[in-house]
Amino acid sequence: VSDTSATSTTSAERLRDPRALARVLSVIEDGSPQLPTLMNELAPLAGNARVIGLTGAPGAGKSTITDALTAAFRARGARVAVLAVDPTSPFTGGALLGDRVRMQRHATDPDVFIRSMASRGHLGGLSAAAPQAIRALDAAGFAVILVETVGVGQAEVEVAGMADTTVVLAVPGMGDSVQAAKAGLLEVADVLVVNKADRPDAQHTVRDLRAMIALAPWSEGWKPPVETTVATTGEGIDELVRQLDRHWDWLASSGERDRRRVARARDEILAMAVGAATRRLASSPRLAELAAQVAAGTLGPYEAAADLASV
Amino acid sequence: VSDTSATSTTSAERLRDPRALARVLSVIEDGSPQLPTLMNELAPLAGNARVIGLTGAPGAGKSTITDALTAAFRARGARVAVLAVDPTSPFTGGALLGDRVRMQRHATDPDVFIRSMASRGHLGGLSAAAPQAIRALDAAGFAVILVETVGVGQAEVEVAGMADTTVVLAVPGMGDSVQAAKAGLLEVADVLVVNKADRPDAQHTVRDLRAMIALAPWSEGWKPPVETTVATTGEGIDELVRQLDRHWDWLASSGERDRRRVARARDEILAMAVGAATRRLASSPRLAELAAQVAAGTLGPYEAAADLASV
Repeated sequence: VSDTSATSTTSAERLRDPRALARVLSVIEDGSPQLPTLMNELAPLAGNARVIGLTGAPGAGKSTITDALTAAFRARGARVAVLAVDPTSPFTGGALLGDRVRMQRHATDPDVFIRSMASRGHLGGLSAAAPQAIRALDAAGFAVILVETVGVGQAEVEVAGMADTTVVLAVPGMGDSVQAAKAGLLEVADVLVVNKADRPDAQHTVRDLRAMIALAPWSEGWKPPVETTVATTGEGIDELVRQLDRHWDWLASSGERDRRRVARARDEILAMAVGAATRRLASSPRLAELAAQVAAGTLGPYEAAADLASV
Repeated sequence: VSDTSATSTTSAERLRDPRALARVLSVIEDGSPQLPTLMNELAPLAGNARVIGLTGAPGAGKSTITDALTAAFRARGARVAVLAVDPTSPFTGGALLGDRVRMQRHATDPDVFIRSMASRGHLGGLSAAAPQAIRALDAAGFAVILVETVGVGQAEVEVAGMADTTVVLAVPGMGDSVQAAKAGLLEVADVLVVNKADRPDAQHTVRDLRAMIALAPWSEGWKPPVETTVATTGEGIDELVRQLDRHWDWLASSGERDRRRVARARDEILAMAVGAATRRLASSPRLAELAAQVAAGTLGPYEAAADLASV
């Protein structure tokens, strides 16, 4: 893909071609040289999509909920994009793609675009690549963008938190370690969902989550509701969509929507600038000398870091 | 804790007092102002310990294996430190500490030191905090340092890979998503352990892992063995220790031990320098203006990042 062909795909019209859009997303994943030009061109086209993040532990039913929400928004006539962000890249490749099998009922719908994404060569990692992918899907005219991540690490929690509305999925009867991870996820939750709510201990989990929310310092004016679903049968999906709409309206009326978008841009710019700084520092020929001295115990690591930064 | 009291705890003799050592580790976690001085003082005292990393998915039996290895090295008379690195900090706090209940048989042994660690305020996160904690434990005279992490994200895999020898734990009958994560873990494995090997599908997992190892491009001269254990009964622990010793000898004879220690110092210095750059960029008053323009679509994110870096 040459510079010319990549930039020629960036008009909103061209991005309606799924193959052109897929090429743009590959450019983002790979951190290809034409990416800066591409992003600068896409910037004015974006800003219209509603971005909904979904996260939760493995096995919480994220793809089933994503599938159900895709169907619900399609029923209203909205074009829907699904971005499944793969945290363990570059190793896993096909893992989340495998989950996408469940989404096959949307595979023939030209108004649904589904993409798994890693951050293969992207400077700044997922924290920089994900907002750029969202920008591309937004510029391509999708009214709803569902961003699905596995909530296993801080980076993934951050990616989920890039959305206008973040949905955190829990499952009844989680063990202690998962409860702990959930505590990290709770910080970014706008709407909580206890999926697999037909299990006997579902109400216990709902009570636990409500108790945690009661204790936490949430942003003024919005208290995350706790919904129950059985995604495989569709139970609770209508009510979940109603809560998502309620949050979307609150974002607009409170001014929080604009505030979050500026915060998202801030994080993106910072991730990029840090990525560039990292590349510069890592490629310094001085680093090897300093490492040998620190390993030998003849230089403190802070002195070494200060030396490296000053080169 | 004032500068004076912290630095007065840094002689090797003083660090034999567990309370003094605990204070030093808190200084590392918190990224307190006296940390650079402290690290520069500890640097010449370190370099003698044998560092063994243990990682694997939640539920793989890491703490049980850690407990068994602690007992095995204690039986040889070695002083043993256990560092349990908590990836989901600052949210989880007590989670891994809870697991430490299993280690209680060593709680009254003055030659075993156990510590859970987050990276609360540390500039550079776990990637910088973990090697500093290892340095402190090393300087305190522990012959063996077991570094236990949950293998859920890239940062944790990196922490496990900081060791001289990295042990990756697998469990029979993992699902697809765990298999995928395992693929990331395999890259850092020196020794693989299939724990809970009394389960019927254990040999299947062993075969899977051996097949993956056969395909992977391992470092010359060392092919990761796949061991089976039932950590709760101690089955297979002697053979695991034998493999760890074999790897330790190979590290010395091949020159790989020094190479790894220099690489570890390199990563540590880089994480610190990047942490400092991140703090500088994040605190720039220009960032808010740039974020507003990118959010409004009037400026591309790459132009904004370049602008930020140039301030």
